[in-house]
Amino acid sequence: MLTLTINDYLRQYIRTVADWPAPGVQFRDITPLLQNPKVFRVLIDAFVHRYMDPALRPDVVAGLDARGFILGAVVAYELNVGFVPIRKKGKLPFTTVEETYELEYGSATVELHADAVKAGDRVLLIDDLIATGGTMMAGKKLLEKLGAQVIEGAAIVDLPELGGSQHLRDSGLPLFTLVDFAGH
Amino acid sequence: MLTLTINDYLRQYIRTVADWPAPGVQFRDITPLLQNPKVFRVLIDAFVHRYMDPALRPDVVAGLDARGFILGAVVAYELNVGFVPIRKKGKLPFTTVEETYELEYGSATVELHADAVKAGDRVLLIDDLIATGGTMMAGKKLLEKLGAQVIEGAAIVDLPELGGSQHLRDSGLPLFTLVDFAGH
Repeated sequence: MLTLTINDYLRQYIRTVADWPAPGVQFRDITPLLQNPKVFRVLIDAFVHRYMDPALRPDVVAGLDARGFILGAVVAYELNVGFVPIRKKGKLPFTTVEETYELEYGSATVELHADAVKAGDRVLLIDDLIATGGTMMAGKKLLEKLGAQVIEGAAIVDLPELGGSQHLRDSGLPLFTLVDFAGH
Repeated sequence: MLTLTINDYLRQYIRTVADWPAPGVQFRDITPLLQNPKVFRVLIDAFVHRYMDPALRPDVVAGLDARGFILGAVVAYELNVGFVPIRKKGKLPFTTVEETYELEYGSATVELHADAVKAGDRVLLIDDLIATGGTMMAGKKLLEKLGAQVIEGAAIVDLPELGGSQHLRDSGLPLFTLVDFAGH
């Protein structure tokens, strides 16, 4: 039985790595959540319990390359819906749509197979963490290019001070995250 | 009810993309398997049914970056064991062990967190496809550096003509794959 809130329970298993990948960054490492069988199940079930509600149940789960694949695939399986990967440019072999977004230095491009979703599909978009929100926003745009509706964005961790989650909400994307961390 | 063998059933949903990523290559694209809810479930359950057997049940599932995350995470969740990612160099933030292997042109390095497995852990190693077998062999060596025992390598697709699966078996790694394709 959990004697903490689920957020406080999961927070204990997120490892902070100082100065990675660059000096001054406090990286929030989710791998300890995944490698403990009980914690992994509590984590996944937090998403499954939310999205099995008929009002929120998606037709498709889309996962963002690469940690979003880990969560998104399990949630899709448990909900009995399909899983589609959104990948960094150059990784998907079939016809794609693509979206480029700005990073602190330079830009990045993500792709989605053109037949991954159908017009009108209700899609849940999953990543491990929301920082600036750039990747999730690009994923939303890709799905919308194909006529799908992104019903919610979900992640384990939000770093609210970076403003990404607020920006995503302001743009009309509801979000569901489990653990907030101040600082970055 | 399936009226085909599971291998023939799954094969119908693997898309062959000609001349990708290079001229002459017939790329076997597994994304259609994932996006159809029924096929995705049949696929995952083929692995779960095998590894829920007490004689083959692992302590940990390790997935290879990045398509191996999709399969490995779901199989780990269903078996109630932990999931650990083996990643391309530079993606894991904590202390790692690393292994470099040869590609057709150049080399690649993969990493594993040093605390991802314990000595004596029985590990199932999962990827989507076995071609030359280089990535899976490197993953096996990483897990063995930490004292774990790799009980089996699993993948959806084997390309036996490339010799990777034979080489892995010759090196003492049992393999379980669902669909063979001639040519590459």
